[in-house]
Amino acid sequence: SIVVDCSNGKVAGTGVFKYPSGQDGVICDKSDANLARQSPADLIEGLKATVLKALSEASKNVKGFKKSDVIGIGMDGTGSSPIPVDKNMTPLGLLPKFKNNKNAQCWLWKDHTSFKESAQITALAKKIRPQYLERCGGSYSWEWFWSKIFHCMNVDRKVFDAAYSWVELSDFIPALLCGVKKPENIIRGVCMAGHKAMYCDNWGGLPDKAFLKKLAPELADLRDRLYEKAFDASHVEGRLSKEWADFFGLPEGIPVAMGEIDVHYGAIGCGIREGTLIKAIGTSTCDCIVFKNTKKVPSIKGICGIVDGSILPGHFAIEAGQSAVGDIFKWFAQILCEGELSKLAKLDEQALKLKPGQSGIIALDWNNGNRNILANPLLTGLILGQTLHTTQAEVYRALVEATAFGARMIVERIKESGVKIERIVCCGGLAEKSPLLMQIYADVTKCEMEISGVEQSCAMGAAIGAAVSAGKAKGGYDSFESAMKKMTSVKKKKYKPIAKNVAVYEKLFAIYKKLHDAFGGVNKKADLSAVMPDLIEIKNEANS
Amino acid sequence: SIVVDCSNGKVAGTGVFKYPSGQDGVICDKSDANLARQSPADLIEGLKATVLKALSEASKNVKGFKKSDVIGIGMDGTGSSPIPVDKNMTPLGLLPKFKNNKNAQCWLWKDHTSFKESAQITALAKKIRPQYLERCGGSYSWEWFWSKIFHCMNVDRKVFDAAYSWVELSDFIPALLCGVKKPENIIRGVCMAGHKAMYCDNWGGLPDKAFLKKLAPELADLRDRLYEKAFDASHVEGRLSKEWADFFGLPEGIPVAMGEIDVHYGAIGCGIREGTLIKAIGTSTCDCIVFKNTKKVPSIKGICGIVDGSILPGHFAIEAGQSAVGDIFKWFAQILCEGELSKLAKLDEQALKLKPGQSGIIALDWNNGNRNILANPLLTGLILGQTLHTTQAEVYRALVEATAFGARMIVERIKESGVKIERIVCCGGLAEKSPLLMQIYADVTKCEMEISGVEQSCAMGAAIGAAVSAGKAKGGYDSFESAMKKMTSVKKKKYKPIAKNVAVYEKLFAIYKKLHDAFGGVNKKADLSAVMPDLIEIKNEANS
Repeated sequence: SIVVDCSNGKVAGTGVFKYPSGQDGVICDKSDANLARQSPADLIEGLKATVLKALSEASKNVKGFKKSDVIGIGMDGTGSSPIPVDKNMTPLGLLPKFKNNKNAQCWLWKDHTSFKESAQITALAKKIRPQYLERCGGSYSWEWFWSKIFHCMNVDRKVFDAAYSWVELSDFIPALLCGVKKPENIIRGVCMAGHKAMYCDNWGGLPDKAFLKKLAPELADLRDRLYEKAFDASHVEGRLSKEWADFFGLPEGIPVAMGEIDVHYGAIGCGIREGTLIKAIGTSTCDCIVFKNTKKVPSIKGICGIVDGSILPGHFAIEAGQSAVGDIFKWFAQILCEGELSKLAKLDEQALKLKPGQSGIIALDWNNGNRNILANPLLTGLILGQTLHTTQAEVYRALVEATAFGARMIVERIKESGVKIERIVCCGGLAEKSPLLMQIYADVTKCEMEISGVEQSCAMGAAIGAAVSAGKAKGGYDSFESAMKKMTSVKKKKYKPIAKNVAVYEKLFAIYKKLHDAFGGVNKKADLSAVMPDLIEIKNEANS
Repeated sequence: SIVVDCSNGKVAGTGVFKYPSGQDGVICDKSDANLARQSPADLIEGLKATVLKALSEASKNVKGFKKSDVIGIGMDGTGSSPIPVDKNMTPLGLLPKFKNNKNAQCWLWKDHTSFKESAQITALAKKIRPQYLERCGGSYSWEWFWSKIFHCMNVDRKVFDAAYSWVELSDFIPALLCGVKKPENIIRGVCMAGHKAMYCDNWGGLPDKAFLKKLAPELADLRDRLYEKAFDASHVEGRLSKEWADFFGLPEGIPVAMGEIDVHYGAIGCGIREGTLIKAIGTSTCDCIVFKNTKKVPSIKGICGIVDGSILPGHFAIEAGQSAVGDIFKWFAQILCEGELSKLAKLDEQALKLKPGQSGIIALDWNNGNRNILANPLLTGLILGQTLHTTQAEVYRALVEATAFGARMIVERIKESGVKIERIVCCGGLAEKSPLLMQIYADVTKCEMEISGVEQSCAMGAAIGAAVSAGKAKGGYDSFESAMKKMTSVKKKKYKPIAKNVAVYEKLFAIYKKLHDAFGGVNKKADLSAVMPDLIEIKNEANS
């Protein structure tokens, strides 16, 4: 949690909490690498601890700060991360009966157990409701709401039957703070609904009952207990309840903003506006872009979501992403090379000394499947061009380049649809820490890379949501645009494309695209005979 | 060198010498990874030291052994490893003028500087002398005699002009021992001539002058100073000279057998016969098979040599091979994983615990190009199928499997031509040290793997050559067949294909072949869309 001065976006206090369950807070399963859950008890414990900590820090840091100065509260979380709850909105994982049952916990976005169900949903939609797939790139993901619930039904009937409703993490926490006691009373966010639950006003909200019934009658029944309408951030979740106000020492009744998925609020924390692509680069990557909702919705194959109001009210937001970026570098440094934690920094340093094309190596960034633009979890990594002399730093650089090529595929696909990209602003750990990565991304995408000046962009976006919910009269803002002007910034250091590098990367990207299309099934008559000799030629040129 | 009891093949004494020049005896060039030379001074020094050492050990080990008991001497060496010599048969590298000139040394087989010249030779032959390519798989290699000499002419005119002749290492040493003082008096071996210098009696020996003239008039002139005829091992190089007999303390005039390339004599040391494929598995791999020369010569595309008499008199010998095997494992363990020397043994142990298909990884064994069956130096390595959990041992096993798949490609290509392969006998460091590799090779090729019982197969083959040169009357043999019966053996431990593994490798080999054909240019309309999903399916099956 952070406490923010909404006059200037300055962070007054911060609170961090380590989730005690599982591995670094993630409940895993040794026999199934696809499983990733989080304990609801951890989530609530974390809420309590971090808010108190951030408030107490703010009191120390800012002279004259009083808890009663707080005018609003906002929250972001991972998604799709649905939590099964009972009639009283108690997460099943809190009940003694289900305490140790992994299926009763919060199903994390990165849980990949539901790939079969997602394929079933996609196949059915293709057949009878093609419109459902138009806004999510042509396929419904194994990472999303219905796939997960359907999988739970298939593998753990007891949990499924005990779940009166399922609530996304970013709906759950705001509703909890407002003292909502019944799941039907939650004001659901269109961010989670639209991107993860196939919700769209065009077809009357969630997927219709007839459709769900064809998957399973139980899912159609569940629809009745979910929600009819979802809302953008021009609405509020509600007012801070007495119970929570007392616990935190905050004023009762201050507005609690609509929750959004972390990267969506992150885009706001980075100052998103029409023409600005926000890239959150961490273990994986999320790309966000917005355009006025008065424009026609383009159909963008392989891009995972287009939702009205999911980031900024009055705008469509496109969400896209790469399933693994930093995770690939960590895998290489720590698992494949069996290096220490410090290995990554060392590789970054060594790879920075190499010239583009010099190694003759090219890679595909699919170690965790391909989210966009192929939307296929059954794809895997590839490293090509190695000789008997290929070094660690050369392969590492090729992996960084591969993620840059993957990023360019997404940028090009969005541009082809007519949506403008004039600037790219990056945030996240890798954007801040790796000049190697930033320069490669600039050279590969042929676009200057700016870096958000806000350290915790997602939390800042939630704070902006809170400031807007409070309104101008209370010291907040009357629009997201005016709040972003005051509360966000970009760093002075910008990465400009270097012409010499761009020229080499044009050639390498063409080869990447060949491999991408061949292994991704786009081109089923691929001529790859020149791939290896061409890389050798590029290598010889770079070394001459 | 070894001293062998020819009644039973027992090694009486051994002498080893470390070449002092360059890196472990190989003269390299930092600015050109393709360059690999050897100092002729090292070669002669090594000859002297090892023969004396082996004889002295034999005197100690065998009661009553006298140097005068030695009835013959034989020699094997790498090839194509031509040495430029002057009119007096002095290697140019021994002359003060050229002592430090890398081009004046022995050009090692693995020197790859001459790939442009080999392409030029192949192109010309395709156009005007297609028959020249029929016996060497359709392309003349950058590793061979004419490519190297042609390259020397192009890059170092002084050395080229000073070279009165060029002599293969395995012709040079036997001739030296016989006191031959003029290059034109050397009895050249058909093994080197046929496999490396485009020699064939069908077209009158070496490539004709008109052909050579089209490459360069200087090469046509050189042909006059080389040789008209080359001979198999039913001939002898000559008799041990007084000078060398005195130096070693051996009887003057004992026969010096024809030299052969290491693996060719190695095949004899492993007991080669019709239907038996000999695989020498080390840093790279060499495959040899023979069939009676009364049969029709098959045309085998991509197999690097078919020569009458190059291994056994009266037989055609086929030579094929893989440019890197052990070298790929070393690269992975020591360069990519930056491991210690002991790393390889550890990886072997870990990989042995994995089941076929379990990792979902597949690789191409082309880190040093592909010698057979694609004959293309511009191919490189590939590793595919990695996730965020892929371990070192998994990739290592995939690399071992890749070399097995490469081996199977060669076996299948030979079999398709109608040449029988009924047994496989392996020799070389990896065959003896790696049960992992042997079992995988058995499972992938679906053929039992036997291992030569002779530790130094190549030297044993040369000793067999010596024993046959000496003849039965002197205590030797009247034929290679009868000598091999007494002097060679296989180990008791044999690796039989395991049905369960074979079934999995059938599927993996089909995927390898897809990749092989796509990147090797055999299939220019490749559908690779199923490669990654299929590997995941095989992985899931192996793990279930």
